[in-house]
Amino acid sequence: MGALHEGHCSLVKQSIMENDHTVVSIFVNPSQFAPHEDLQSYPKTLLKDMELLAARFPNKPVDAVFVPTVSEMYPSGITLDVGNQRGAFVLVLGCSEQLEGVTRPQFFRGVATVVSKLLNIVTPDKIYFGQKDAQQCVVIKNMVKDLLIDTEVRVLPTTREESGLAMSSRNQYLSPESKQHSAAIYRGLNAGEIFYYSQNGPTKSTDILDKVRSIYNQEEKSRFELEYLSLNHPETLDKLDIVTPGEGAIMSTAVKVPRADGSGQARLIDNVVLK
Amino acid sequence: MGALHEGHCSLVKQSIMENDHTVVSIFVNPSQFAPHEDLQSYPKTLLKDMELLAARFPNKPVDAVFVPTVSEMYPSGITLDVGNQRGAFVLVLGCSEQLEGVTRPQFFRGVATVVSKLLNIVTPDKIYFGQKDAQQCVVIKNMVKDLLIDTEVRVLPTTREESGLAMSSRNQYLSPESKQHSAAIYRGLNAGEIFYYSQNGPTKSTDILDKVRSIYNQEEKSRFELEYLSLNHPETLDKLDIVTPGEGAIMSTAVKVPRADGSGQARLIDNVVLK
Repeated sequence: MGALHEGHCSLVKQSIMENDHTVVSIFVNPSQFAPHEDLQSYPKTLLKDMELLAARFPNKPVDAVFVPTVSEMYPSGITLDVGNQRGAFVLVLGCSEQLEGVTRPQFFRGVATVVSKLLNIVTPDKIYFGQKDAQQCVVIKNMVKDLLIDTEVRVLPTTREESGLAMSSRNQYLSPESKQHSAAIYRGLNAGEIFYYSQNGPTKSTDILDKVRSIYNQEEKSRFELEYLSLNHPETLDKLDIVTPGEGAIMSTAVKVPRADGSGQARLIDNVVLK
Repeated sequence: MGALHEGHCSLVKQSIMENDHTVVSIFVNPSQFAPHEDLQSYPKTLLKDMELLAARFPNKPVDAVFVPTVSEMYPSGITLDVGNQRGAFVLVLGCSEQLEGVTRPQFFRGVATVVSKLLNIVTPDKIYFGQKDAQQCVVIKNMVKDLLIDTEVRVLPTTREESGLAMSSRNQYLSPESKQHSAAIYRGLNAGEIFYYSQNGPTKSTDILDKVRSIYNQEEKSRFELEYLSLNHPETLDKLDIVTPGEGAIMSTAVKVPRADGSGQARLIDNVVLK
Protein backbone atom coordinates (compact mmCIF):
# COMPACT_ATOMS: atom_id res chain seq x y z
CA MET A 1 0.00 0.00 0.00
CA GLY A 2 3.01 2.30 -0.34
CA ALA A 3 4.30 4.66 2.36
CA LEU A 4 7.32 2.38 2.18
CA HIS A 5 9.55 1.78 5.18
CA GLU A 6 12.38 -0.59 6.05
CA GLY A 7 9.89 -3.43 6.56
CA HIS A 8 8.86 -3.22 2.91
CA CYS A 9 12.50 -2.85 1.87
CA SER A 10 13.40 -6.11 3.61
CA LEU A 11 10.83 -7.88 1.39
CA VAL A 12 12.15 -6.20 -1.75
CA LYS A 13 15.74 -7.07 -0.80
CA GLN A 14 14.87 -10.74 -0.30
CA SER A 15 12.97 -10.88 -3.58
CA ILE A 16 15.87 -9.33 -5.50
CA MET A 17 18.17 -11.96 -3.95
CA GLU A 18 15.89 -14.91 -4.71
CA ASN A 19 14.52 -14.06 -8.16
CA ASP A 20 15.51 -12.87 -11.63
CA HIS A 21 12.92 -10.11 -11.62
CA THR A 22 11.11 -8.17 -8.91
CA VAL A 23 7.88 -6.19 -9.21
CA VAL A 24 6.78 -3.88 -6.38
CA SER A 25 3.05 -3.20 -6.27
CA ILE A 26 1.86 0.06 -4.71
CA PHE A 27 -1.91 0.31 -4.41
CA VAL A 28 -3.99 1.64 -1.54
CA ASN A 29 -6.80 -0.88 -1.79
CA PRO A 30 -10.21 0.68 -1.09
CA SER A 31 -12.06 -2.61 -0.55
CA GLN A 32 -10.11 -3.37 2.64
CA PHE A 33 -11.20 -0.13 4.31
CA ALA A 34 -14.56 0.33 6.06
CA PRO A 35 -16.38 3.65 5.47
CA HIS A 36 -15.28 4.92 8.93
CA GLU A 37 -11.61 3.91 8.50
CA ASP A 38 -8.61 5.90 7.29
CA LEU A 39 -8.71 5.40 3.49
CA GLN A 40 -8.72 9.16 2.86
CA SER A 41 -5.90 9.94 5.31
CA TYR A 42 -3.81 6.82 4.60
CA PRO A 43 -0.35 8.14 3.66
CA LYS A 44 0.14 8.33 -0.14
CA THR A 45 3.80 9.10 -0.91
CA LEU A 46 4.47 7.64 -4.35
CA LEU A 47 7.41 9.86 -5.33
CA LYS A 48 9.12 9.35 -1.98
CA ASP A 49 8.49 5.60 -2.35
CA MET A 50 10.12 5.55 -5.78
CA GLU A 51 13.11 7.53 -4.50
CA LEU A 52 13.49 5.18 -1.54
CA LEU A 53 13.50 2.13 -3.82
CA ALA A 54 16.06 3.76 -6.14
CA ALA A 55 18.29 4.76 -3.20
CA ARG A 56 18.12 1.43 -1.38
CA PHE A 57 18.68 -0.82 -4.40
CA PRO A 58 21.16 1.03 -6.63
CA ASN A 59 22.96 -2.03 -8.01
CA LYS A 60 20.17 -4.45 -8.79
CA PRO A 61 17.04 -2.28 -8.86
CA VAL A 62 13.48 -3.57 -8.98
CA ASP A 63 12.27 -4.27 -12.51
CA ALA A 64 8.93 -2.52 -12.19
CA VAL A 65 6.78 -0.62 -9.76
CA PHE A 66 3.16 -1.48 -10.51
CA VAL A 67 0.86 1.42 -9.59
CA PRO A 68 -2.59 0.64 -10.97
CA THR A 69 -5.61 2.93 -10.74
CA VAL A 70 -8.69 1.99 -8.75
CA SER A 71 -10.74 1.48 -11.93
CA GLU A 72 -8.06 -0.80 -13.38
CA MET A 73 -8.18 -2.97 -10.27
CA TYR A 74 -11.99 -2.79 -9.93
CA PRO A 75 -13.42 -2.89 -13.48
CA SER A 76 -16.98 -3.14 -12.08
CA GLY A 77 -16.32 -0.18 -9.74
CA ILE A 78 -15.96 -0.32 -5.96
CA THR A 79 -17.90 1.25 -3.11
CA LEU A 80 -16.91 1.01 0.56
CA ASP A 81 -20.59 0.30 1.30
CA VAL A 82 -20.32 -3.50 1.42
CA GLY A 83 -24.06 -4.07 0.98
CA ASN A 84 -23.91 -2.38 -2.42
CA GLN A 85 -20.70 -3.89 -3.75
CA ARG A 86 -20.87 -5.57 -7.15
CA GLY A 87 -18.33 -7.76 -8.88
CA ALA A 88 -15.99 -10.59 -7.90
CA PHE A 89 -14.59 -10.97 -4.39
CA VAL A 90 -12.52 -13.66 -2.71
CA LEU A 91 -13.54 -14.91 0.74
CA VAL A 92 -11.25 -17.02 2.92
CA LEU A 93 -13.59 -18.55 5.46
CA GLY A 94 -12.38 -19.84 8.82
CA CYS A 95 -9.38 -17.54 9.30
CA SER A 96 -10.85 -14.13 8.41
CA GLU A 97 -13.46 -13.73 11.14
CA GLN A 98 -11.39 -13.69 14.36
CA LEU A 99 -8.70 -11.22 15.60
CA GLU A 100 -8.57 -8.35 13.05
CA GLY A 101 -11.81 -9.67 11.54
CA VAL A 102 -13.81 -8.84 14.66
CA THR A 103 -13.53 -5.06 14.29
CA ARG A 104 -12.83 -5.20 10.54
CA PRO A 105 -15.35 -7.76 9.21
CA GLN A 106 -14.73 -7.05 5.48
CA PHE A 107 -11.00 -6.46 5.77
CA PHE A 108 -9.69 -9.84 4.65
CA ARG A 109 -12.26 -10.13 1.90
CA GLY A 110 -10.72 -6.92 0.53
CA VAL A 111 -7.16 -8.15 1.05
CA ALA A 112 -7.73 -11.58 -0.51
CA THR A 113 -9.56 -10.01 -3.45
CA VAL A 114 -6.85 -7.47 -4.28
CA VAL A 115 -4.03 -10.00 -3.81
CA SER A 116 -5.77 -12.48 -6.11
CA LYS A 117 -5.98 -9.73 -8.75
CA LEU A 118 -2.31 -8.80 -8.32
CA LEU A 119 -1.37 -12.48 -8.63
CA ASN A 120 -3.44 -12.84 -11.80
CA ILE A 121 -1.82 -9.77 -13.36
CA VAL A 122 1.82 -10.34 -12.35
CA THR A 123 1.82 -14.19 -12.12
CA PRO A 124 4.88 -14.17 -9.83
CA ASP A 125 6.81 -17.30 -8.84
CA LYS A 126 6.99 -15.94 -5.30
CA ILE A 127 5.03 -13.29 -3.42
CA TYR A 128 6.43 -11.60 -0.30
CA PHE A 129 4.65 -10.56 2.89
CA GLY A 130 5.81 -9.40 6.31
CA GLN A 131 5.06 -11.44 9.43
CA LYS A 132 3.82 -8.23 11.07
CA ASP A 133 0.49 -8.78 9.30
CA ALA A 134 0.24 -12.30 10.68
CA GLN A 135 -3.42 -12.94 9.92
CA GLN A 136 -3.03 -11.55 6.41
CA CYS A 137 -0.23 -14.07 5.85
CA VAL A 138 -2.46 -16.94 6.99
CA VAL A 139 -5.37 -15.75 4.83
CA ILE A 140 -3.17 -15.44 1.74
CA LYS A 141 -1.48 -18.81 2.33
CA ASN A 142 -4.90 -20.45 2.62
CA MET A 143 -6.17 -18.63 -0.48
CA VAL A 144 -3.18 -19.76 -2.53
CA LYS A 145 -3.58 -23.33 -1.29
CA ASP A 146 -7.36 -23.51 -1.77
CA LEU A 147 -7.57 -21.75 -5.13
CA LEU A 148 -4.56 -23.74 -6.36
CA ILE A 149 -2.66 -20.62 -7.36
CA ASP A 150 0.81 -21.43 -8.68
CA THR A 151 2.91 -19.16 -6.47
CA GLU A 152 5.00 -19.51 -3.31
CA VAL A 153 4.03 -17.32 -0.38
CA ARG A 154 7.19 -16.09 1.39
CA VAL A 155 6.73 -14.60 4.85
CA LEU A 156 9.66 -12.59 6.26
CA PRO A 157 10.28 -11.49 9.86
CA THR A 158 8.84 -8.25 11.18
CA THR A 159 11.25 -5.33 10.90
CA ARG A 160 11.37 -3.30 14.12
CA GLU A 161 12.58 0.09 15.22
CA GLU A 162 15.33 0.15 17.85
CA SER A 163 12.64 0.39 20.53
CA GLY A 164 11.10 -2.87 19.31
CA LEU A 165 8.08 -1.11 17.77
CA ALA A 166 7.06 -2.93 14.57
CA MET A 167 7.59 -0.79 11.46
CA SER A 168 4.26 0.34 10.01
CA SER A 169 3.08 3.02 7.61
CA ARG A 170 0.63 4.00 10.34
CA ASN A 171 3.53 4.86 12.70
CA GLN A 172 3.56 8.18 10.82
CA TYR A 173 0.41 9.05 12.75
CA LEU A 174 2.30 8.96 16.10
CA SER A 175 4.08 11.66 18.09
CA PRO A 176 7.59 10.78 19.37
CA GLU A 177 6.10 10.36 22.83
CA SER A 178 3.31 8.09 21.59
CA LYS A 179 5.91 6.04 19.73
CA GLN A 180 7.77 5.51 22.99
CA HIS A 181 4.62 4.25 24.70
CA SER A 182 3.84 2.04 21.69
CA ALA A 183 7.14 0.24 22.21
CA ALA A 184 5.40 -1.52 25.10
CA ILE A 185 3.42 -3.54 22.51
CA TYR A 186 6.42 -5.64 21.57
CA ARG A 187 7.96 -5.52 25.07
CA GLY A 188 4.81 -7.27 26.31
CA LEU A 189 4.74 -9.87 23.53
CA ASN A 190 8.40 -10.53 24.14
CA ALA A 191 7.79 -11.11 27.87
CA GLY A 192 5.12 -13.69 26.98
CA GLU A 193 7.45 -15.34 24.48
CA ILE A 194 10.29 -15.62 27.01
CA PHE A 195 7.90 -17.13 29.56
CA TYR A 196 6.64 -19.72 27.03
CA TYR A 197 10.11 -20.92 26.09
CA SER A 198 11.11 -21.05 29.79
CA GLN A 199 8.29 -23.56 30.37
CA ASN A 200 9.78 -25.94 27.81
CA GLY A 201 6.50 -27.81 27.35
CA PRO A 202 2.73 -27.38 26.87
CA THR A 203 1.75 -24.08 28.47
CA LYS A 204 -1.66 -22.62 29.29
CA SER A 205 -2.51 -19.65 27.08
CA THR A 206 -3.85 -17.66 30.02
CA ASP A 207 -0.47 -17.97 31.78
CA ILE A 208 1.39 -16.68 28.72
CA LEU A 209 -1.05 -13.84 28.10
CA ASP A 210 -0.91 -12.80 31.78
CA LYS A 211 2.82 -12.10 31.34
CA VAL A 212 2.03 -9.85 28.37
CA ARG A 213 -0.75 -8.07 30.22
CA SER A 214 1.48 -7.39 33.20
CA ILE A 215 3.56 -5.16 30.87
CA TYR A 216 0.53 -3.56 29.23
CA ASN A 217 -1.01 -2.74 32.61
CA GLN A 218 1.96 -0.49 33.36
CA GLU A 219 0.74 1.89 30.62
CA GLU A 220 -1.88 4.57 31.22
CA LYS A 221 -5.17 3.46 29.63
CA SER A 222 -5.70 6.82 27.87
CA ARG A 223 -2.38 6.33 26.09
CA PHE A 224 -2.52 2.61 25.45
CA GLU A 225 -5.84 0.88 24.86
CA LEU A 226 -5.67 -2.89 24.37
CA GLU A 227 -8.19 -4.14 21.79
CA TYR A 228 -7.32 -7.83 21.76
CA LEU A 229 -4.52 -10.17 22.81
CA SER A 230 -4.81 -13.77 21.65
CA LEU A 231 -3.03 -17.07 21.03
CA ASN A 232 -4.10 -18.89 17.87
CA HIS A 233 -3.13 -21.90 15.81
CA PRO A 234 -0.50 -20.86 13.25
CA GLU A 235 -2.36 -22.29 10.24
CA THR A 236 -6.07 -22.32 11.09
CA LEU A 237 -6.06 -19.36 13.55
CA ASP A 238 -8.35 -21.39 15.83
CA LYS A 239 -8.05 -20.08 19.39
CA LEU A 240 -5.68 -22.14 21.57
CA ASP A 241 -6.20 -22.90 25.27
CA ILE A 242 -2.77 -24.54 25.45
CA VAL A 243 0.33 -23.88 23.38
CA THR A 244 2.33 -27.00 22.57
CA PRO A 245 5.94 -26.93 21.37
CA GLY A 246 6.09 -28.27 17.81
CA GLU A 247 2.55 -27.16 17.00
CA GLY A 248 3.24 -23.58 18.12
CA ALA A 249 1.03 -20.50 17.99
CA ILE A 250 0.69 -16.94 16.82
CA MET A 251 0.44 -14.51 19.73
CA SER A 252 -1.11 -11.34 18.36
CA THR A 253 -2.44 -8.05 19.61
CA ALA A 254 -4.06 -4.80 18.50
CA VAL A 255 -3.57 -1.61 20.51
CA LYS A 256 -4.94 1.89 20.06
CA VAL A 257 -2.76 4.91 20.88
CA PRO A 258 -3.42 8.66 20.45
CA ARG A 259 -2.65 10.19 17.05
CA ALA A 260 -0.18 13.11 17.03
CA ASP A 261 -2.71 15.39 15.31
CA GLY A 262 -5.27 14.85 18.07
CA SER A 263 -7.74 13.27 15.60
CA GLY A 264 -8.59 10.18 17.64
CA GLN A 265 -6.49 7.03 17.81
CA ALA A 266 -4.10 5.08 15.63
CA ARG A 267 -4.54 1.32 15.63
CA LEU A 268 -1.31 -0.69 15.76
CA ILE A 269 -0.95 -4.46 15.44
CA ASP A 270 1.92 -6.78 16.26
CA ASN A 271 2.59 -10.47 16.89
CA VAL A 272 5.22 -13.06 17.67
CA VAL A 273 5.28 -16.64 16.42
CA LEU A 274 5.81 -19.29 19.09
CA LYS A 275 7.35 -22.50 17.80
CA MET B 1 -19.58 -32.08 -14.66
CA GLY B 2 -19.43 -35.07 -17.01
CA ALA B 3 -22.44 -37.06 -18.26
CA LEU B 4 -21.36 -35.65 -21.61
CA HIS B 5 -23.84 -35.00 -24.39
CA GLU B 6 -23.76 -33.27 -27.77
CA GLY B 7 -23.86 -29.87 -26.04
CA HIS B 8 -20.52 -30.56 -24.39
CA CYS B 9 -19.15 -32.02 -27.61
CA SER B 10 -19.95 -28.79 -29.46
CA LEU B 11 -17.69 -26.94 -26.98
CA VAL B 12 -14.92 -29.51 -27.35
CA LYS B 13 -15.19 -29.37 -31.14
CA GLN B 14 -14.88 -25.57 -31.17
CA SER B 15 -11.92 -25.66 -28.80
CA ILE B 16 -10.09 -28.23 -30.94
CA MET B 17 -10.67 -25.98 -33.96
CA GLU B 18 -9.49 -22.78 -32.26
CA ASN B 19 -6.54 -23.97 -30.15
CA ASP B 20 -3.36 -26.05 -30.26
CA HIS B 21 -4.36 -28.04 -27.20
CA THR B 22 -7.66 -28.88 -25.52
CA VAL B 23 -8.25 -30.04 -21.96
CA VAL B 24 -11.66 -31.37 -20.90
CA SER B 25 -12.39 -31.09 -17.18
CA ILE B 26 -14.83 -33.56 -15.63
CA PHE B 27 -15.64 -32.81 -12.01
CA VAL B 28 -18.98 -32.99 -10.22
CA ASN B 29 -18.46 -29.94 -8.02
CA PRO B 30 -19.93 -30.45 -4.52
CA SER B 31 -19.87 -26.77 -3.53
CA GLN B 32 -22.53 -25.87 -6.10
CA PHE B 33 -25.06 -28.32 -4.67
CA ALA B 34 -27.23 -27.59 -1.64
CA PRO B 35 -27.70 -30.42 0.89
CA HIS B 36 -31.23 -31.16 -0.49
CA GLU B 37 -30.13 -31.20 -4.14
CA ASP B 38 -29.07 -34.06 -6.42
CA LEU B 39 -25.30 -34.35 -5.76
CA GLN B 40 -25.61 -38.04 -4.85
CA SER B 41 -27.79 -38.95 -7.82
CA TYR B 42 -26.12 -36.65 -10.37
CA PRO B 43 -25.11 -38.95 -13.27
CA LYS B 44 -21.44 -40.03 -13.06
CA THR B 45 -20.45 -41.80 -16.27
CA LEU B 46 -16.68 -41.29 -16.62
CA LEU B 47 -15.92 -44.33 -18.82
CA LYS B 48 -18.82 -43.57 -21.15
CA ASP B 49 -17.65 -39.95 -21.26
CA MET B 50 -14.11 -40.98 -22.25
CA GLU B 51 -15.48 -43.34 -24.93
CA LEU B 52 -17.71 -40.59 -26.31
CA LEU B 53 -14.77 -38.17 -26.56
CA ALA B 54 -12.62 -40.81 -28.26
CA ALA B 55 -15.40 -41.70 -30.71
CA ARG B 56 -16.41 -38.14 -31.56
CA PHE B 57 -12.87 -36.76 -32.05
CA PRO B 58 -10.86 -39.58 -33.67
CA ASN B 59 -8.56 -37.40 -35.80
CA LYS B 60 -7.57 -34.59 -33.47
CA PRO B 61 -8.42 -35.90 -30.00
CA VAL B 62 -8.43 -33.83 -26.82
CA ASP B 63 -4.99 -33.61 -25.20
CA ALA B 64 -6.14 -34.39 -21.67
CA VAL B 65 -9.21 -35.17 -19.63
CA PHE B 66 -8.70 -33.61 -16.19
CA VAL B 67 -10.57 -35.62 -13.54
CA PRO B 68 -9.48 -34.32 -10.14
CA THR B 69 -10.63 -35.71 -6.81
CA VAL B 70 -12.69 -33.66 -4.38
CA SER B 71 -9.74 -33.34 -1.99
CA GLU B 72 -7.46 -32.14 -4.79
CA MET B 73 -9.96 -29.41 -5.66
CA TYR B 74 -10.78 -28.58 -2.03
CA PRO B 75 -7.52 -28.88 -0.04
CA SER B 76 -9.25 -27.48 3.07
CA GLY B 77 -12.12 -29.95 2.67
CA ILE B 78 -15.69 -29.15 1.63
CA THR B 79 -19.04 -29.57 3.33
CA LEU B 80 -22.40 -28.80 1.71
CA ASP B 81 -23.37 -27.08 4.97
CA VAL B 82 -22.54 -23.53 3.89
CA GLY B 83 -22.41 -22.17 7.45
CA ASN B 84 -19.54 -24.52 8.25
CA GLN B 85 -17.52 -24.14 5.07
CA ARG B 86 -13.85 -23.20 5.47
CA GLY B 87 -11.35 -22.10 2.86
CA ALA B 88 -11.32 -19.80 -0.15
CA PHE B 89 -14.44 -19.05 -2.18
CA VAL B 90 -15.15 -16.65 -5.03
CA LEU B 91 -18.30 -14.50 -4.90
CA VAL B 92 -19.61 -12.60 -7.91
CA LEU B 93 -21.98 -10.06 -6.42
CA GLY B 94 -24.76 -8.42 -8.43
CA CYS B 95 -25.41 -11.21 -10.93
CA SER B 96 -25.55 -14.29 -8.65
CA GLU B 97 -28.60 -13.48 -6.53
CA GLN B 98 -31.45 -13.35 -9.06
CA LEU B 99 -32.94 -16.08 -11.34
CA GLU B 100 -31.16 -19.36 -10.43
CA GLY B 101 -29.76 -17.64 -7.34
CA VAL B 102 -33.22 -17.29 -5.77
CA THR B 103 -33.74 -21.00 -5.19
CA ARG B 104 -30.00 -21.84 -5.24
CA PRO B 105 -28.42 -19.07 -3.13
CA GLN B 106 -24.93 -20.67 -2.94
CA PHE B 107 -24.91 -22.07 -6.47
CA PHE B 108 -22.86 -19.42 -8.23
CA ARG B 109 -20.42 -19.10 -5.35
CA GLY B 110 -19.70 -22.80 -5.91
CA VAL B 111 -19.48 -22.39 -9.68
CA ALA B 112 -17.22 -19.32 -9.58
CA THR B 113 -14.98 -20.98 -6.98
CA VAL B 114 -14.47 -24.21 -8.92
CA VAL B 115 -13.97 -22.41 -12.23
CA SER B 116 -11.35 -20.11 -10.69
CA LYS B 117 -9.52 -23.22 -9.45
CA LEU B 118 -9.71 -24.91 -12.87
CA LEU B 119 -8.41 -21.72 -14.48
CA ASN B 120 -5.51 -21.53 -12.03
CA ILE B 121 -4.56 -25.15 -12.66
CA VAL B 122 -4.95 -25.29 -16.45
CA THR B 123 -4.25 -21.57 -17.31
CA PRO B 124 -6.09 -21.87 -20.62
CA ASP B 125 -6.05 -19.16 -23.31
CA LYS B 126 -9.76 -19.76 -23.81
CA ILE B 127 -12.45 -21.41 -21.71
CA TYR B 128 -15.70 -22.72 -23.23
CA PHE B 129 -19.24 -22.59 -21.85
CA GLY B 130 -22.67 -23.26 -23.31
CA GLN B 131 -25.28 -20.51 -23.57
CA LYS B 132 -27.78 -22.91 -21.98
CA ASP B 133 -26.35 -21.93 -18.59
CA ALA B 134 -26.86 -18.24 -19.32
CA GLN B 135 -26.42 -16.90 -15.80
CA GLN B 136 -23.32 -19.04 -15.28
CA CYS B 137 -21.83 -17.47 -18.41
CA VAL B 138 -22.51 -13.96 -17.05
CA VAL B 139 -21.07 -14.83 -13.64
CA ILE B 140 -17.90 -16.31 -15.16
CA LYS B 141 -17.45 -13.39 -17.58
CA ASN B 142 -17.74 -10.96 -14.68
CA MET B 143 -15.35 -13.02 -12.55
CA VAL B 144 -12.73 -13.10 -15.31
CA LYS B 145 -13.11 -9.36 -15.89
CA ASP B 146 -13.06 -8.37 -12.20
CA LEU B 147 -10.27 -10.69 -11.05
CA LEU B 148 -8.23 -9.79 -14.15
CA ILE B 149 -7.81 -13.41 -15.16
CA ASP B 150 -5.92 -13.78 -18.43
CA THR B 151 -8.34 -15.97 -20.36
CA GLU B 152 -11.04 -15.48 -22.99
CA VAL B 153 -14.53 -16.72 -22.11
CA ARG B 154 -16.16 -18.28 -25.19
CA VAL B 155 -19.91 -18.87 -25.04
CA LEU B 156 -21.39 -21.19 -27.66
CA PRO B 157 -25.05 -21.63 -28.65
CA THR B 158 -27.28 -24.08 -26.82
CA THR B 159 -27.43 -27.49 -28.49
CA ARG B 160 -30.99 -28.78 -28.75
CA GLU B 161 -32.71 -32.07 -29.40
CA GLU B 162 -34.93 -32.26 -32.47
CA SER B 163 -37.91 -31.26 -30.31
CA GLY B 164 -36.13 -28.06 -29.28
CA LEU B 165 -35.42 -29.30 -25.74
CA ALA B 166 -32.04 -27.99 -24.60
CA MET B 167 -29.48 -30.77 -24.12
CA SER B 168 -28.77 -31.36 -20.44
CA SER B 169 -27.26 -34.12 -18.32
CA ARG B 170 -30.42 -33.87 -16.24
CA ASN B 171 -32.54 -34.90 -19.26
CA GLN B 172 -31.52 -38.45 -18.28
CA TYR B 173 -33.97 -38.11 -15.40
CA LEU B 174 -36.94 -37.78 -17.81
CA SER B 175 -39.30 -40.37 -19.30
CA PRO B 176 -39.89 -40.13 -23.08
CA GLU B 177 -43.30 -38.67 -22.32
CA SER B 178 -41.90 -36.09 -19.91
CA LYS B 179 -39.30 -35.15 -22.53
CA GLN B 180 -42.10 -34.45 -24.97
CA HIS B 181 -43.82 -32.10 -22.51
CA SER B 182 -40.48 -30.45 -21.72
CA ALA B 183 -40.15 -29.44 -25.34
CA ALA B 184 -42.73 -26.74 -24.55
CA ILE B 185 -39.98 -24.88 -22.62
CA TYR B 186 -38.21 -23.81 -25.78
CA ARG B 187 -41.41 -23.59 -27.83
CA GLY B 188 -42.56 -20.91 -25.39
CA LEU B 189 -39.29 -18.99 -25.39
CA ASN B 190 -39.26 -19.13 -29.15
CA ALA B 191 -42.78 -17.68 -29.32
CA GLY B 192 -41.62 -14.76 -27.14
CA GLU B 193 -38.55 -14.29 -29.30
CA ILE B 194 -40.57 -14.19 -32.53
CA PHE B 195 -42.96 -11.65 -30.97
CA TYR B 196 -40.05 -9.41 -29.86
CA TYR B 197 -38.43 -9.31 -33.29
CA SER B 198 -41.83 -8.67 -34.91
CA GLN B 199 -42.15 -5.48 -32.82
CA ASN B 200 -38.93 -4.12 -34.33
CA GLY B 201 -38.43 -1.64 -31.47
CA PRO B 202 -38.52 -1.24 -27.69
CA THR B 203 -40.97 -3.79 -26.32
CA LYS B 204 -42.53 -4.19 -22.87
CA SER B 205 -41.21 -7.23 -21.04
CA THR B 206 -44.70 -8.20 -19.86
CA ASP B 207 -45.90 -8.38 -23.47
CA ILE B 208 -43.04 -10.66 -24.47
CA LEU B 209 -43.44 -12.90 -21.43
CA ASP B 210 -47.22 -13.16 -21.98
CA LYS B 211 -46.49 -14.79 -25.34
CA VAL B 212 -44.27 -17.37 -23.60
CA ARG B 213 -46.82 -18.00 -20.86
CA SER B 214 -49.59 -18.58 -23.39
CA ILE B 215 -47.62 -21.66 -24.54
CA TYR B 216 -46.79 -22.79 -21.00
CA ASN B 217 -50.43 -22.48 -19.95
CA GLN B 218 -51.33 -25.19 -22.46
CA GLU B 219 -49.42 -27.71 -20.32
CA GLU B 220 -50.96 -29.50 -17.33
CA LYS B 221 -49.57 -27.98 -14.14
CA SER B 222 -48.74 -31.37 -12.61
CA ARG B 223 -46.50 -32.10 -15.59
CA PHE B 224 -45.00 -28.66 -16.14
CA GLU B 225 -44.45 -26.34 -13.19
CA LEU B 226 -43.05 -22.91 -14.06
CA GLU B 227 -40.55 -21.65 -11.45
CA TYR B 228 -39.52 -18.37 -13.06
CA LEU B 229 -39.64 -16.62 -16.41
CA SER B 230 -37.69 -13.37 -16.68
CA LEU B 231 -36.09 -10.80 -18.96
CA ASN B 232 -32.73 -9.48 -17.77
CA HIS B 233 -29.89 -7.26 -18.97
CA PRO B 234 -27.37 -9.43 -20.85
CA GLU B 235 -24.32 -8.24 -18.83
CA THR B 236 -25.60 -7.14 -15.41
CA LEU B 237 -28.68 -9.43 -15.23
CA ASP B 238 -30.67 -6.48 -13.85
CA LYS B 239 -34.39 -7.06 -14.48
CA LEU B 240 -35.71 -5.24 -17.56
CA ASP B 241 -39.15 -3.64 -17.88
CA ILE B 242 -38.52 -2.86 -21.53
CA VAL B 243 -36.30 -4.68 -24.02
CA THR B 244 -34.54 -2.37 -26.46
CA PRO B 245 -32.95 -3.57 -29.72
CA GLY B 246 -29.17 -3.07 -29.52
CA GLU B 247 -29.10 -3.44 -25.74
CA GLY B 248 -30.94 -6.76 -25.85
CA ALA B 249 -31.83 -9.16 -23.06
CA ILE B 250 -31.60 -12.70 -21.79
CA MET B 251 -35.02 -14.34 -21.53
CA SER B 252 -34.66 -17.26 -19.16
CA THR B 253 -36.81 -19.80 -17.41
CA ALA B 254 -36.73 -22.72 -14.99
CA VAL B 255 -39.36 -25.43 -15.14
CA LYS B 256 -39.97 -28.51 -13.01
CA VAL B 257 -41.19 -31.74 -14.61
CA PRO B 258 -41.77 -35.20 -13.12
CA ARG B 259 -38.77 -37.55 -12.96
CA ALA B 260 -39.14 -40.90 -14.72
CA ASP B 261 -38.37 -42.85 -11.53
CA GLY B 262 -41.17 -41.13 -9.63
CA SER B 263 -38.74 -39.52 -7.16
CA GLY B 264 -40.06 -35.97 -7.34
CA GLN B 265 -39.22 -33.48 -10.04
CA ALA B 266 -36.34 -32.64 -12.37
CA ARG B 267 -35.49 -28.97 -12.72
CA LEU B 268 -34.75 -27.82 -16.28
CA ILE B 269 -33.48 -24.41 -17.38
CA ASP B 270 -33.36 -22.74 -20.76
CA ASN B 271 -33.00 -19.30 -22.28
CA VAL B 272 -32.81 -17.30 -25.48
CA VAL B 273 -30.72 -14.19 -26.07
CA LEU B 274 -32.60 -11.26 -27.59
CA LYS B 275 -30.38 -8.83 -29.53
